[in-house]
Amino acid sequence: MIEDTYVSTKDMPWLEFGAGIDFKILRTSQETGAWTVLFRCAKGAAFNPHRHLGGGEYLVLKGRMEVRGGAEKGGITATTGDYGYEPNGVLHDETFFPEPTELYFTNFGAIQFLTPELEPDFVLDFAMLEELGRSAKRQAA
Amino acid sequence: MIEDTYVSTKDMPWLEFGAGIDFKILRTSQETGAWTVLFRCAKGAAFNPHRHLGGGEYLVLKGRMEVRGGAEKGGITATTGDYGYEPNGVLHDETFFPEPTELYFTNFGAIQFLTPELEPDFVLDFAMLEELGRSAKRQAA
Amino acid sequence: MIEDTYVSTKDMPWLEFGAGIDFKILRTSQETGAWTVLFRCAKGAAFNPHRHLGGGEYLVLKGRMEVRGGAEKGGITATTGDYGYEPNGVLHDETFFPEPTELYFTNFGAIQFLTPELEPDFVLDFAMLEELGRSAKRQAA
Amino acid sequence: MIEDTYVSTKDMPWLEFGAGIDFKILRTSQETGAWTVLFRCAKGAAFNPHRHLGGGEYLVLKGRMEVRGGAEKGGITATTGDYGYEPNGVLHDETFFPEPTELYFTNFGAIQFLTPELEPDFVLDFAMLEELGRSAKRQAA
Repeated sequence: MIEDTYVSTKDMPWLEFGAGIDFKILRTSQETGAWTVLFRCAKGAAFNPHRHLGGGEYLVLKGRMEVRGGAEKGGITATTGDYGYEPNGVLHDETFFPEPTELYFTNFGAIQFLTPELEPDFVLDFAMLEELGRSAKRQAA
Repeated sequence: MIEDTYVSTKDMPWLEFGAGIDFKILRTSQETGAWTVLFRCAKGAAFNPHRHLGGGEYLVLKGRMEVRGGAEKGGITATTGDYGYEPNGVLHDETFFPEPTELYFTNFGAIQFLTPELEPDFVLDFAMLEELGRSAKRQAA
Repeated sequence: MIEDTYVSTKDMPWLEFGAGIDFKILRTSQETGAWTVLFRCAKGAAFNPHRHLGGGEYLVLKGRMEVRGGAEKGGITATTGDYGYEPNGVLHDETFFPEPTELYFTNFGAIQFLTPELEPDFVLDFAMLEELGRSAKRQAA
Repeated sequence: MIEDTYVSTKDMPWLEFGAGIDFKILRTSQETGAWTVLFRCAKGAAFNPHRHLGGGEYLVLKGRMEVRGGAEKGGITATTGDYGYEPNGVLHDETFFPEPTELYFTNFGAIQFLTPELEPDFVLDFAMLEELGRSAKRQAA
């Protein structure tokens, strides 16, 4: 029987995800492939191009996130308090953070990261995330 | 093709859920039964006893939530910034809010609400939630 | 780590589901609420009215199944080799078996069974199914 | 509102998947990434090494399938009527069919196919499967 659980996210250390992005893992599931994290993104940080292999949802806790070039280029610019849904199958070029940003992200599967030339790079799934969580360097709070 | 979407939660009105609880619907899905909401709970408000017919996750945005009697009685007391996972199949008696509380909640199915005597009362699913969203009274921001 | 598993369905006993219907449980999941079964329905057997609280898929291994009154009344009549998808949220009055029928059924959640007057009767979920599996009478092969 | 649907699988043509394997697509879902198919595998056919990025379930309708080298090498040998569950995250080297085999397969996500050297090759997801379904050559019944 799986029981209900909770964690104080404030008491967890930030771990280095790379390229100015830190994270805290709140949940991973082998069975569904779902994972829930907090992301903390430095000003100017970005996620590389990627294709979603499962839907995902986010709540911007603070800051600003530009998806598909941001609202000026026909994409999305999400700021503090904004909620978004990123469906399975969607291709995102760069997701950019023009300000220090924190994001709560629940994701229902893997993400295929791509090179700048949009060639397959690596697949981020629950298992790689767990491994990252074990090996990542702790960052300053 | 389902596209990515987002909403500014601050621009959405609070709707009356009942018994001191208001909500904003961020997403519902017939296909998976999932729904994502914000809950705003007045001091002293509570969710009636219920059984989860799908897992759920929450992030406490502010306030205090006592699950299964709270930490003093062996349950959970979650406060601002805390994350929790409520698995499918779990029975919760009363979930109580001793302070004004806001909660981001992603839920993967229906919830069977029960009477105080733990008899089946009604099933809250995506369809009832959508119907509630259409008919609920707007509350003050 | 969850490993891959398999069972020989032929070596499993049929268990009594009730009202001329037997079943074999192939999988249940607390985490997702999914369950996979074989149903064997006697000629003239029927499932009571019910509302799906999760999607389901079936493959008719042999026989004939009439959903929503069957094809003559605007519903579905599925026979050997037919595949069907029953989405979350759908209300089915009676699902009737005019011939001895075997069905492979994968279901992604609970089912709310209703009385003949369409009042809530009971919720069949993974936990009740597991309990049924433990207590049900073995039937002749 | 998604309605219930069904198809007569016998009236659908077999499409060429490649390397002695044909398929019929029964369902694909962008939202969940799930897809349900029939596979028909010639004697001696095999699926290349792959890693599951979502769980899957199968029912062997006829024939014989050897997973992870088959039962003789510590893997699984599934024959007519056998049911199996392949969890998310599992790595399968070659899945081999020593006899003509038919398989009903429900899969909850993408599959990362690998080269014989276990390097990433391509990701098979609902979208590629749909594209395959549109372009694949019809095979003899």
